Amino acid sequence: MSADGYATDTVTRLETNLDDLSPELTGATVERLLAAGALDVWLTPIQMKKNRPGVQLSVLCDDAHTAALTDLIFTETSAFGLRVEKITRLKLERRFETVATAFGDITIKLGLRRGRILQIAPEFQSCRAAAERAGAPLRTVFAAAASEAERRFGSTDGA
Amino acid sequence: MSADGYATDTVTRLETNLDDLSPELTGATVERLLAAGALDVWLTPIQMKKNRPGVQLSVLCDDAHTAALTDLIFTETSAFGLRVEKITRLKLERRFETVATAFGDITIKLGLRRGRILQIAPEFQSCRAAAERAGAPLRTVFAAAASEAERRFGSTDGA
Amino acid sequence: MSADGYATDTVTRLETNLDDLSPELTGATVERLLAAGALDVWLTPIQMKKNRPGVQLSVLCDDAHTAALTDLIFTETSAFGLRVEKITRLKLERRFETVATAFGDITIKLGLRRGRILQIAPEFQSCRAAAERAGAPLRTVFAAAASEAERRFGSTDGA
Amino acid sequence: MSADGYATDTVTRLETNLDDLSPELTGATVERLLAAGALDVWLTPIQMKKNRPGVQLSVLCDDAHTAALTDLIFTETSAFGLRVEKITRLKLERRFETVATAFGDITIKLGLRRGRILQIAPEFQSCRAAAERAGAPLRTVFAAAASEAERRFGSTDGA
Amino acid sequence: MSADGYATDTVTRLETNLDDLSPELTGATVERLLAAGALDVWLTPIQMKKNRPGVQLSVLCDDAHTAALTDLIFTETSAFGLRVEKITRLKLERRFETVATAFGDITIKLGLRRGRILQIAPEFQSCRAAAERAGAPLRTVFAAAASEAERRFGSTDGA
Amino acid sequence: MSADGYATDTVTRLETNLDDLSPELTGATVERLLAAGALDVWLTPIQMKKNRPGVQLSVLCDDAHTAALTDLIFTETSAFGLRVEKITRLKLERRFETVATAFGDITIKLGLRRGRILQIAPEFQSCRAAAERAGAPLRTVFAAAASEAERRFGSTDGA
Repeated sequence: MSADGYATDTVTRLETNLDDLSPELTGATVERLLAAGALDVWLTPIQMKKNRPGVQLSVLCDDAHTAALTDLIFTETSAFGLRVEKITRLKLERRFETVATAFGDITIKLGLRRGRILQIAPEFQSCRAAAERAGAPLRTVFAAAASEAERRFGSTDGA
Repeated sequence: MSADGYATDTVTRLETNLDDLSPELTGATVERLLAAGALDVWLTPIQMKKNRPGVQLSVLCDDAHTAALTDLIFTETSAFGLRVEKITRLKLERRFETVATAFGDITIKLGLRRGRILQIAPEFQSCRAAAERAGAPLRTVFAAAASEAERRFGSTDGA
Repeated sequence: MSADGYATDTVTRLETNLDDLSPELTGATVERLLAAGALDVWLTPIQMKKNRPGVQLSVLCDDAHTAALTDLIFTETSAFGLRVEKITRLKLERRFETVATAFGDITIKLGLRRGRILQIAPEFQSCRAAAERAGAPLRTVFAAAASEAERRFGSTDGA
Repeated sequence: MSADGYATDTVTRLETNLDDLSPELTGATVERLLAAGALDVWLTPIQMKKNRPGVQLSVLCDDAHTAALTDLIFTETSAFGLRVEKITRLKLERRFETVATAFGDITIKLGLRRGRILQIAPEFQSCRAAAERAGAPLRTVFAAAASEAERRFGSTDGA
Repeated sequence: MSADGYATDTVTRLETNLDDLSPELTGATVERLLAAGALDVWLTPIQMKKNRPGVQLSVLCDDAHTAALTDLIFTETSAFGLRVEKITRLKLERRFETVATAFGDITIKLGLRRGRILQIAPEFQSCRAAAERAGAPLRTVFAAAASEAERRFGSTDGA
Repeated sequence: MSADGYATDTVTRLETNLDDLSPELTGATVERLLAAGALDVWLTPIQMKKNRPGVQLSVLCDDAHTAALTDLIFTETSAFGLRVEKITRLKLERRFETVATAFGDITIKLGLRRGRILQIAPEFQSCRAAAERAGAPLRTVFAAAASEAERRFGSTDGA
């Protein structure tokens, strides 16, 4: 279950090239795929034949959601075909902590490998909620949370 | 041969990153690859080392065409290497129909799963030919064809 | 007030290149700018010095909103500077209509020049609401609305 | 008529952001705009609101073609508005020459400033025609033409 | 000299579309333009005619450098023409400070409007030098510098 | 070891989507990955959820470097996960030659299949060094080197 201290799993990547779907519908599809359980969804601008400014739709999902997300792509987009690949992932362990800031408590996501903290990231939704409550710029809240998280969880030994 | 009612096949994806080929030649290569039997060809803008605005060339092909298309890439582009991957595809069954419009008959491509119509797409070439004959905007012809195809083949039951 | 039958106005385009802002914050900024009255906001992927995958933020706004949006960009992004340009726009007149479909009434946006209909577009929000009510694919609702709108407002004379 | 030895002219740039047009139709529009006299047409992938993978359509044109191209954009695309800007251009003088190669005569486009050659470019169509006649790779023909053009017109004095 | 408390200046934007230059040479041109005094240089991937994956080169410069940079573009790229536009910029005042971190002193760039600090950015070169001295990840140094800068210069009043 | 006359090898492609890392740090990571032994590193602009203009980081590496580069990605970027794929490559044999030009000797990289020369490419670093020595445009040096290399190694038989 680990490669050099990382957790691993296997996920499926679904991909299709869209050259005849309105971007308006493509954007809505991204939201529906995420709502239906996709691990991640992203769009890559690609240049297709006949000067078409197409888009590659990529969806990462686990086994439990592959069938439903496949059906959703065929239903919500103009795809006649779909590429399916199994992909191995390396992952950090995740741990959530809370830090106190002038804007209230903010959730922090930590990424660890063998117990060592490699990632310290203020949670987006937590920062946005605090920014809205305080009427403060989102960046300011992020900076305050990151600063406090850095003080508590950050490396200070130059390594 | 089917996963959850979809047809499947296995194709090869050839990919290479180009950072020293004139876009003029890259564009011409796309056309030659399609003419030589590629199932699909597309370009992705990528950012390579040393500030180079490169491009990733991607080619999908079946077994019968892989060798010839490989040679063509090495001959027509500046590639010194090529990535080769086998990819599984899920596909809808295709059926072609014709609808009558004010601009003449237009070919419609249908995509089906277990006999149910999931995709209804006016054929590009058919619409373009009709638009040129009529001196009409291509969009107008598409809209007329899509409207008539929707009327004949579309779902009307809210599902 | 018109050039060849088009309405015209003058708007301001604000632009800045961001090479040191987290995409997470850039995305949130887009939403705040739209909420604060921007006419349009978009991001263009650009390649900046030192291999930085930057982004150009573009904002269109009218005179009444320029000062507030300018302040918002300096507050919410990492910008130290902002490019300001006056731009002339040509526009179609807009008219809203309603069409009946199997999924309920849908709003249609028409674009006119000298009274002639050039654009027929189902409204996104109206289609999405109907799709959610019916549990139908968004595309299916769009197609039904576009088909009915085409029947009522579309050109049928091949011109 | 010249700035530091360059020829100058003034052209119009028409731009619109498309978020509800099928890429298939966008690609066809590019070809129609070029056929109708546009000096240049290009598409830029942009990220629009609501996760829409839009495209910015840009058209350069001279005064004689601005009205017709404007109408074409409103007719062939889903645009409700169009940005119009006057742009000054600096240009090299153009001169065409012919060089003899193993693949036949090839046209060369030279770019000059105050009589000095700054650009030496084999003409794309001329190279492609020669490549098709000879059954040779387009790149090989370009290289041969560029090599001979370089020998005849290139700088050899390290400046 | 100020609009709503911002400093302003006027710069020139030079732009050209490149469809026949090797990305390798485009990348080198970016570095030469910056070395020759450009205020900023960036590349935008664009889709040009005939399926060419072109690139738009954009250069911002002040009056003192416009002529030299223009010549450089015509010399180092394949451009036959160049678009020239005057652009107004709004700018924050800049002030540099130093903060002490576990990785040594780091330069901080502040952006101010009417004396109020809107931007707090660790200087890239200063962080990179410290990261190399310490053998630490660049991100860790940035986070430490940003944290300390935030503590000293940041807003703590939720506004 | 060969497929149709090409050399082959197997490499690993590491990929992660970054939506919360400053482009400034992403750019620096590219350089560190190359310095640490990556075969190739590139960035693809992608559109992620919530309007985020993200970037996909791709790294090609051989087995000897996979572990170190994996660690580097988790240390230098904000990644919590990494996709790992084995990829087969087809490659040309490489041979280096030198050609004499008015700007001094330039290294040429040749790509061969079964002894036949398919690629002739002036080496970037060699051309740049010569251009700097001579104070000549890089393009001019490339053109001179390509011309001489074409004369010596190029196909002249129209095939």
